[in-house]
Amino acid sequence: MNLPPLTPPTAQDVVAAAARLKGLTHRTPVLRSGTADVRLGAQLFFKCENFQRTGSFKLRGAFNTLEQFTDEQRKHGVLAFSAGNHAQAIALSARLLDIPALIVMPEDALASKMAATREYGAQVVTYNRYTEDREAISQRIAQERGMTLVPPSEHPHVIAGQGTAALELFEEVPRLDYLFVPVGGGGLLAGSLLAAQALASDCTVIGVEPETANDAQQSLQSGQIVHIPLPHTIADGAQAQSLGPLVFDIVNQPGQKIVTVSDLQLMQSLRFFAERMKSVVEPTGALALAGARHGGIDIGGARVGIIISGGNVDLARYARFLAD
Amino acid sequence: MNLPPLTPPTAQDVVAAAARLKGLTHRTPVLRSGTADVRLGAQLFFKCENFQRTGSFKLRGAFNTLEQFTDEQRKHGVLAFSAGNHAQAIALSARLLDIPALIVMPEDALASKMAATREYGAQVVTYNRYTEDREAISQRIAQERGMTLVPPSEHPHVIAGQGTAALELFEEVPRLDYLFVPVGGGGLLAGSLLAAQALASDCTVIGVEPETANDAQQSLQSGQIVHIPLPHTIADGAQAQSLGPLVFDIVNQPGQKIVTVSDLQLMQSLRFFAERMKSVVEPTGALALAGARHGGIDIGGARVGIIISGGNVDLARYARFLAD
Repeated sequence: MNLPPLTPPTAQDVVAAAARLKGLTHRTPVLRSGTADVRLGAQLFFKCENFQRTGSFKLRGAFNTLEQFTDEQRKHGVLAFSAGNHAQAIALSARLLDIPALIVMPEDALASKMAATREYGAQVVTYNRYTEDREAISQRIAQERGMTLVPPSEHPHVIAGQGTAALELFEEVPRLDYLFVPVGGGGLLAGSLLAAQALASDCTVIGVEPETANDAQQSLQSGQIVHIPLPHTIADGAQAQSLGPLVFDIVNQPGQKIVTVSDLQLMQSLRFFAERMKSVVEPTGALALAGARHGGIDIGGARVGIIISGGNVDLARYARFLAD
Repeated sequence: MNLPPLTPPTAQDVVAAAARLKGLTHRTPVLRSGTADVRLGAQLFFKCENFQRTGSFKLRGAFNTLEQFTDEQRKHGVLAFSAGNHAQAIALSARLLDIPALIVMPEDALASKMAATREYGAQVVTYNRYTEDREAISQRIAQERGMTLVPPSEHPHVIAGQGTAALELFEEVPRLDYLFVPVGGGGLLAGSLLAAQALASDCTVIGVEPETANDAQQSLQSGQIVHIPLPHTIADGAQAQSLGPLVFDIVNQPGQKIVTVSDLQLMQSLRFFAERMKSVVEPTGALALAGARHGGIDIGGARVGIIISGGNVDLARYARFLAD
């Protein structure tokens, strides 16, 4: 079963998504840090999606999409392939809407992620990453069971949902000069750009990628979607190899900037979040702060929004990051 | 130089303190956790003082006290002895009010705590914990320089300030049945009891101590202040050996409950905060959740406030807690 045709989402769709999510997703807090302000010479406003239900912003896009399923789609259920935050987001959204959910995960995914996904009530099907093709598996299951496949970024309802994080920030903090946003599949960046159209047209929205995973930056530079080999980076949520066409069309505007940061810079930001802001942030979630600090944009004296996209990281791995 | 005489603080003093702190301390967020609600069978509301400036609620009492200094007291400055959160709270409060500050710390205090205290602009004087008496040192310096000594708990302005955390929670979350509060020197518990008098007279406020540091529990049971030997616990902010008389008089009411938890239970709560709530919480800061979970109070179906008192923990030590 297919989702509706891919009409590009608009600023109005983000506003409509926010109304749909009300009371179901958390309105996450905006935190300040005097130390961060001093170090960066700017006023920083951190939108903490690591405190979102399921631990990341992904719940916004997932819920906004499932909520618009037809009765027929609800009956047959939703399918997603993800080893990460999208899996938990789909699983919880499906439970909230009483829709069956099946998540296809690599058999070597973290046990904690599988457990969390099952805890939200989803069925988990595993595959071998080295010998099997997850897309083929997913499509076969989708056909056999009539389930609807929801992608992690490349869908208008997903993008509109992701934009609601920035929308809430713009509502709460007027007159932002910059907004830094992590970029993996690009749904959060595309949604944030639409949110800025709705509420903060003077705010410059800047994407941040790991330097080894800069497919979006390359795509903007060349004016067409660039595919890259599977990148090595600690930011496991930003390992997408290319943007989809829907996301690309929204992001590919004259003057749109994407900056990159190193894994070491990500780690420094992650440790800053733990030590000074008492926040557990996953490496991908630290992209925006690292980009504001090291991305080469002059933010001196500016009012700057930072989206912390998520906080899901295996405790043992996180402990190693802090101890290093 | 001395602080004003020790008139016991009232509920009205907490309300007045809140007005004094406005715009200078953070109004910290109240977070929810679906997982915590399911596990405890209750509705939990977490007041996150780990996100307070300086990383703990202590800023509230310190600022409220320093703000009421006379001109003469401001000129000569403030003195405190503390290896922990009180030190940073006094240092930042003094800087905000342009008052000289001197903190007496053991020479083996964590380098990170000393650095943070100096970063806030305070002078740090160290002493040898094994051969020198910090109270004698502090009183000598206070006399020589005319500085005013501010204790961490045992003062009406400190207690009134600490009560503003609970006051904010009561304002934001009506109809709480229970409020669990960490107990070290007891200033936070005493202030929270006053805040409940002001805004939530139906809410039962319960103190939580480490089982090895249960001097307050023993004091309530015996009806007089009990001194205990220096206790062993990972909750380094709750190692006070006795309550002061001012705190005791407020806390020592018929029916007042104090429950205790083990270090293992604290550690479990600390890890829950990291894994599920993405919050860095120091061991002392995890007392209230551990008490709600393991303290033997039947909170089934209730609306329960939890004060997370702070998040200041050395990163290397914290990493070991998570990795264990």
